[in-house]
Amino acid sequence: MKTRVTKLLNIQYPIVQGGLAHLAYAELASAVSNAGGLGQITAMTLGEGEKLRKEIRKTKELTQNPYGVNFAIGQHATSYEELLEVVIEEEVPVISVTGANPKPIFERLQGEKVKKLVLVANVRQAQKAESLGADAVMAVGNEGGGHLGRDEVGTVVLIPRVVQSVSIPVLASGGIGTGRGLLAALALGADGIEMGTRFIATKECVHAHQTYKKALLASSEQDTVIIKKTWGAPGRVLKSVYTNHIIQREREGATYEDLKESVSGEANKKYIYEGEEDKGFGWAGQVVGLIDSVPSVQELIVNMIEEARHGAEDVYKMFEN
Amino acid sequence: MKTRVTKLLNIQYPIVQGGLAHLAYAELASAVSNAGGLGQITAMTLGEGEKLRKEIRKTKELTQNPYGVNFAIGQHATSYEELLEVVIEEEVPVISVTGANPKPIFERLQGEKVKKLVLVANVRQAQKAESLGADAVMAVGNEGGGHLGRDEVGTVVLIPRVVQSVSIPVLASGGIGTGRGLLAALALGADGIEMGTRFIATKECVHAHQTYKKALLASSEQDTVIIKKTWGAPGRVLKSVYTNHIIQREREGATYEDLKESVSGEANKKYIYEGEEDKGFGWAGQVVGLIDSVPSVQELIVNMIEEARHGAEDVYKMFEN
Repeated sequence: MKTRVTKLLNIQYPIVQGGLAHLAYAELASAVSNAGGLGQITAMTLGEGEKLRKEIRKTKELTQNPYGVNFAIGQHATSYEELLEVVIEEEVPVISVTGANPKPIFERLQGEKVKKLVLVANVRQAQKAESLGADAVMAVGNEGGGHLGRDEVGTVVLIPRVVQSVSIPVLASGGIGTGRGLLAALALGADGIEMGTRFIATKECVHAHQTYKKALLASSEQDTVIIKKTWGAPGRVLKSVYTNHIIQREREGATYEDLKESVSGEANKKYIYEGEEDKGFGWAGQVVGLIDSVPSVQELIVNMIEEARHGAEDVYKMFEN
Repeated sequence: MKTRVTKLLNIQYPIVQGGLAHLAYAELASAVSNAGGLGQITAMTLGEGEKLRKEIRKTKELTQNPYGVNFAIGQHATSYEELLEVVIEEEVPVISVTGANPKPIFERLQGEKVKKLVLVANVRQAQKAESLGADAVMAVGNEGGGHLGRDEVGTVVLIPRVVQSVSIPVLASGGIGTGRGLLAALALGADGIEMGTRFIATKECVHAHQTYKKALLASSEQDTVIIKKTWGAPGRVLKSVYTNHIIQREREGATYEDLKESVSGEANKKYIYEGEEDKGFGWAGQVVGLIDSVPSVQELIVNMIEEARHGAEDVYKMFEN
């Protein structure tokens, strides 16, 4: 199929895999790219330049198609300069920036051929990203997993607002994990989707513990909650005794410093790598309510495109009468 | 056009106007029905049976098309028995029930020809409504104006979940006010939409004060907030000094009894009828970010259908290549 996103990124289907801290490595990224979408490696959770280089080279061995590297440069992130040099040296075709102002990264990339995507949560951020030279924005609605905007604007409103506010292509993110969801994103004027949570529940997301995958299947759309809201950095996670406790502490006035360890990457890994439900947490969007299988990435994408294609026909016919 | 909802309600376009407390009377309801949608009169805010009868008869004079009567039977609502008898006597073609269990209303309507719609905010309520005999459900996502579900599930996830959980038609509600929004609802598997806030900013919503209409145009999708959340009855309103004060009081532990007058129908009317911003509030959904005109209802619906039709063609073509 063809949209501005498939043309921009030179991919078959307008589906970009999200950055997925601690989970987005060569196996998953290459599977998504081989299936016609754009897979991504997470740079920041790899930490060191040589580790990133190894992961990029592994990805290049596993796929001939375009892929991306994600930079999650949120407020408590470490430095990325070394990682960025590796991206340039390895001639990575696409990067995405999430969590903060992409300006310093874009400045370093000037003159390089790499395509630049930016995750935004409101119109102002989208316009800023466009003015800085982003090739496309990924707009995330309140349904999404992981870090979100502070205004709680739902995907169904956010996407058309961003689409009417920028000229570059828009990828819809937040609450999308099916062919019907992809179709709705296109209906709202997006040129494609970014999808995170849904890709965790695939065979090729080899780093996610079975406990985490099973929880994604078992959870309903009512089973996610938002942590870190009181500090202005809301993030959606699976509801659990552990995450309920964080929220309770926040309500009682706990600061970031108080709960730093409980919300850290280490606590995240305790759950998503080791399945220790009482020692950590897992990011997840409301789309968990629509996840009930762990297919291969290839199966997932083929099924989504078929479902979207049939849905497009059905909807088109409604207007013919 | 044709969907299960147009067939069920015998209307031209699958667009149902929401109940709109204090604003949904004969002028608006007949305009929506004349434009091919389903207009509704609000029963509960009329209060007395004979007042409702007068409004129904006025509506019948103004349109030959089907119309509905809404019963908002939330927790602090008054009794509706007398109003329901009038609906039966006047042979109203459609009723909708919002805010609570429709069982007692449905029991009284047994054997009557009236079609029954129910507003729901989660799968459990939708299944309950179906089992009680609802002809269709209207599922409202977290983006919506007025009273919402407690789980903050966005429209883009809630609609496909409800569609897969019931056999009766589903109308999508929450965040929809454009042709693209209608198209997205159909893409998600809905058979139509319920739309509230968008209809307030029309010429025929004659009871809404200019101050309220102007505020709907001026507001962005970031300019709504939720009141009454701490009491388990969240409702989305326009952000203002007045509504911020309510939220602040709630945070400090104020009870419903403490703030009863501030959140009452009288306070609502102070703002929406008289434009007194410091004495009351107005319900509104996040869709205010997409509202920038006050057209006639006929113009609004014609434009929405055209936009949706063109969008359906555009999206369909994306899959052809």
